[in-house]
Amino acid sequence: MSMPARLTGVIPPVCTPLTPEGEVDTHSLLKLVDHLAGAGVDALFVLGSTSEVAFLTDTRRRTVVETVTAHLDGSLPVLAGAIDTTTPRVLAHARTALAAGADAVVATVPFYTRTHPAEIDRHYRLLAEHTGAPVVAYDLPVAVQTKLDPDVVLSLAADGVLTGLKDSSGDQAALREVITAAIPGFSVLTGSELLVDTALLMGADGVVPGLGNVDPHGYVRLFRLCAAGDWDRARTEQERLCNLFAMVDVGSADRMGRGSSGIGAFKAALRLRGVIDHATTAEPQIPLSDGEVERVAKYLAAAGLL
Amino acid sequence: MSMPARLTGVIPPVCTPLTPEGEVDTHSLLKLVDHLAGAGVDALFVLGSTSEVAFLTDTRRRTVVETVTAHLDGSLPVLAGAIDTTTPRVLAHARTALAAGADAVVATVPFYTRTHPAEIDRHYRLLAEHTGAPVVAYDLPVAVQTKLDPDVVLSLAADGVLTGLKDSSGDQAALREVITAAIPGFSVLTGSELLVDTALLMGADGVVPGLGNVDPHGYVRLFRLCAAGDWDRARTEQERLCNLFAMVDVGSADRMGRGSSGIGAFKAALRLRGVIDHATTAEPQIPLSDGEVERVAKYLAAAGLL
Amino acid sequence: MSMPARLTGVIPPVCTPLTPEGEVDTHSLLKLVDHLAGAGVDALFVLGSTSEVAFLTDTRRRTVVETVTAHLDGSLPVLAGAIDTTTPRVLAHARTALAAGADAVVATVPFYTRTHPAEIDRHYRLLAEHTGAPVVAYDLPVAVQTKLDPDVVLSLAADGVLTGLKDSSGDQAALREVITAAIPGFSVLTGSELLVDTALLMGADGVVPGLGNVDPHGYVRLFRLCAAGDWDRARTEQERLCNLFAMVDVGSADRMGRGSSGIGAFKAALRLRGVIDHATTAEPQIPLSDGEVERVAKYLAAAGLL
Amino acid sequence: MSMPARLTGVIPPVCTPLTPEGEVDTHSLLKLVDHLAGAGVDALFVLGSTSEVAFLTDTRRRTVVETVTAHLDGSLPVLAGAIDTTTPRVLAHARTALAAGADAVVATVPFYTRTHPAEIDRHYRLLAEHTGAPVVAYDLPVAVQTKLDPDVVLSLAADGVLTGLKDSSGDQAALREVITAAIPGFSVLTGSELLVDTALLMGADGVVPGLGNVDPHGYVRLFRLCAAGDWDRARTEQERLCNLFAMVDVGSADRMGRGSSGIGAFKAALRLRGVIDHATTAEPQIPLSDGEVERVAKYLAAAGLL
Repeated sequence: MSMPARLTGVIPPVCTPLTPEGEVDTHSLLKLVDHLAGAGVDALFVLGSTSEVAFLTDTRRRTVVETVTAHLDGSLPVLAGAIDTTTPRVLAHARTALAAGADAVVATVPFYTRTHPAEIDRHYRLLAEHTGAPVVAYDLPVAVQTKLDPDVVLSLAADGVLTGLKDSSGDQAALREVITAAIPGFSVLTGSELLVDTALLMGADGVVPGLGNVDPHGYVRLFRLCAAGDWDRARTEQERLCNLFAMVDVGSADRMGRGSSGIGAFKAALRLRGVIDHATTAEPQIPLSDGEVERVAKYLAAAGLL
Repeated sequence: MSMPARLTGVIPPVCTPLTPEGEVDTHSLLKLVDHLAGAGVDALFVLGSTSEVAFLTDTRRRTVVETVTAHLDGSLPVLAGAIDTTTPRVLAHARTALAAGADAVVATVPFYTRTHPAEIDRHYRLLAEHTGAPVVAYDLPVAVQTKLDPDVVLSLAADGVLTGLKDSSGDQAALREVITAAIPGFSVLTGSELLVDTALLMGADGVVPGLGNVDPHGYVRLFRLCAAGDWDRARTEQERLCNLFAMVDVGSADRMGRGSSGIGAFKAALRLRGVIDHATTAEPQIPLSDGEVERVAKYLAAAGLL
Repeated sequence: MSMPARLTGVIPPVCTPLTPEGEVDTHSLLKLVDHLAGAGVDALFVLGSTSEVAFLTDTRRRTVVETVTAHLDGSLPVLAGAIDTTTPRVLAHARTALAAGADAVVATVPFYTRTHPAEIDRHYRLLAEHTGAPVVAYDLPVAVQTKLDPDVVLSLAADGVLTGLKDSSGDQAALREVITAAIPGFSVLTGSELLVDTALLMGADGVVPGLGNVDPHGYVRLFRLCAAGDWDRARTEQERLCNLFAMVDVGSADRMGRGSSGIGAFKAALRLRGVIDHATTAEPQIPLSDGEVERVAKYLAAAGLL
Repeated sequence: MSMPARLTGVIPPVCTPLTPEGEVDTHSLLKLVDHLAGAGVDALFVLGSTSEVAFLTDTRRRTVVETVTAHLDGSLPVLAGAIDTTTPRVLAHARTALAAGADAVVATVPFYTRTHPAEIDRHYRLLAEHTGAPVVAYDLPVAVQTKLDPDVVLSLAADGVLTGLKDSSGDQAALREVITAAIPGFSVLTGSELLVDTALLMGADGVVPGLGNVDPHGYVRLFRLCAAGDWDRARTEQERLCNLFAMVDVGSADRMGRGSSGIGAFKAALRLRGVIDHATTAEPQIPLSDGEVERVAKYLAAAGLL
């Protein structure tokens, strides 16, 4: 599928089901894709943080893109993360993903190295120039240490270098600044599961919710209620999803990091819902205990999903 | 060369000379290796931060290791960085580097993802188990956001999982804690160019100075003075090197990040000293201006190196 | 005035006009109070960050509270900041403010010292116990380094220790968590000038906008539009205020901190609007230049305020 | 006593013994002063972070200075912390301390507010101008969020605004930069208990060790060994003190902050050694448990102090 004029709606960052040995479980991946597409989402984002992209070898990354694009066969746009430290390495991932059928690439600012706004600007210009593909900037300071400056984003958007922004910075004031600039053809997406209604109230174009793997129908409903201006019912739906999202903290902070807990919870929920076969997460993440998985089941039940 | 029983002495993190097109300039790389070996360094560390490892594609990384190990042919131990976000990706780099002739691998804690001490412990255990090679932990919180906990290091060292620590954390009190534990066979190396005498006074085994590319003779002299307990002359040599190190700030903070400035200065100095052919740095780093390069020349002259 | 059952509406953090010598300009302070009260605000918050409380000596702090409470004579509730490092020092300020007529005190978590959640809990319990007055928690991590944990807030609220929360953390997801818990009698106020409509959509009770000094009518209008569920017109009003808020960045980052620029801009705007006599800010803040003040005037003109 | 031409040697930051009710225990305070003076320290620093200055009301702060200066009657120089958020408030404390007999004041950069180097420069110039007393800059980023820039320090030192620097930043490279500049009459003191030998090797003038309350004889010995160039024996003494210092972590991180644990340990040790009557710490700090105090006793025994 070629990309739409402007990305809008619900675009889940697709989890990567793994076999117990840590390989991509393509069977489960396609069941997950069908689960999402069947709920009416507007596009898919593979190889984002929620996909455990930082844990996937190059081979596994390519497998993910190829598997999803071949299955969808153009029925939905596929964005692919090209997540690595700097321009030459990101470019390598972007080329692979595009060759494997992705419609657009999503890239953070450089990380590991210390970055200047002029270098960030150069980074995205080189990515756009050398791929010739739509590039979405991914603002994720929790992972890359650097908040993407709204002024840099808007300048790149105005020059047609960037197609969109996926904002997972948590900085709603900066997000609003980018939204209200209203650059033609530029799409602003929030990555927050918890603030969809407010982002859409401000004028955001869409949402990329990790929790959308677990409850895509909920996010599709929420988006449509907001689009219809039915803010009261939207808030009710959003609060239900907030309660469900609390599952990301089931993992004991004494035993594991928040990543292990959050991704572990999403995968446990997908397995409990029968969408994927294994809840395996990649090394060196710590698996949830049986008791923690039981708590995930309670969250699902409370949200009417089990 | 097999690794020595304990890594000691001066182990420069070797810069990666690049052609103007951004490819590895193997001719210059070998001249640099000869420059370092000729000064009497004790081992080489390739694919560290100073090598711009974060900017090198997989192909270029492999070229660096192969070029250096083939040239040295066992005359010096070669440590290779395996720098990537998580265990599966680090393992892939480690295997490639070892196959290309490296004697040991150097790895940071996971980054991009949020990490728990239990996951860090698991990370290093998996690396050691799956490579069967000596593993040196690389503590670089400025790049990876996480300070490596001395307790975790000491536990991994006591279990024989880690062969050494390269400490670039800037936390001299934590460094002292690891040094004074004095784990048999475990080597503690400081990555600070500016605190070599004080680290050796505390009992560190060696030093991995980026500035050692530019003035390896200075660091070899400094190490020998400290080893001989001649602390007064050591301090004088150290202060000369501190003055030289100030070159890393020649690049205007208005135009570039500190990485661009520091690596740019080292490469400019190596070119001015006739060791490498081009001062090119990798994208998206910003090159030094002519005036900034002139200031590098002044630092070299003041240190008696031009 | 005794406090209302629940704090709601617009509660500006009142600027502290100063004479050129740095004393409290009580004449201007009262003009500012009348300006705010005349616009229909619901309460006043003196000695908050916007008041330069961190720059006011104890004597000047007392003068502010006495001046305002005597003038209002119970016509509006007056909240007073008790801003200091730890419990004993905060208590001293709280007692002074209450003796001077304040209706409630607003206190941050301890700062300068490193703080544990158990100490924060103890801090607020001691403040409530020893003052016997309503205590509002002030979440301002940019000033005090510590984000106030929603779980701690909710526990203190449920126990009747806290009367309300002023959230200036920028963390809208955490704010939502506190709001949706809906503790009876507990008031949740946002300190963000830029996210009022979204906070009220989530169910917040009120807003404490520094920019409300400059344009209290705008915030009163915005609050009423939100209360009426007229989200489209609310958004338009909010965006006008966002554009006006950009004045906080008029001060050159080469010459001054963001505090100097922001408070300087608010005071320049108040002087330009004829509300206060001097735009003096406290030492060691850097004054705006004439050119920077002219830019403030342009912001006012663009917002229809000059 | 007037101040010496240059502050050197061991200058302990004096703990503030408290009664169980939280008032200054002046009897114990004087016993502690005698304990320190008797060990041969070179000056005393009251109202520093180790004194719990952030927890002491103004009245208690004044009591501390008056009690100590009256007792010493000029036999040792007394430096007093003037710890508060900004210039006007710091000035008020400085004037009180000087009137109460202090010989010099020690002040951090502004905190709570966001600070620019130009404001820091202005802050210290105003303090020096308005007190007419020696001013020592206190670099403590863990408390005040801002690292004091070596360039700002050196400029203020060269202009005679600052008499010295107490460096508790942990940044040994920046400390070295200030030391090697060797401004005439300007004294550089390290606040690190664990890096005294290395700081003196670099050329520092003295040390301000919180642990010096517990073992002043140890620090006096360490300083003299370093001054004599006996670095081997100095290192042995330093390592003994490092082992002793580990007491600061006896308090459970589940129950309290690191401040509560560290100050609690020092006070418990002083009580166990018979120097002070109560180990009370100020609110809202959490007291050590009996078991934790027993562990303090073991540290003392291991260091030969019980």
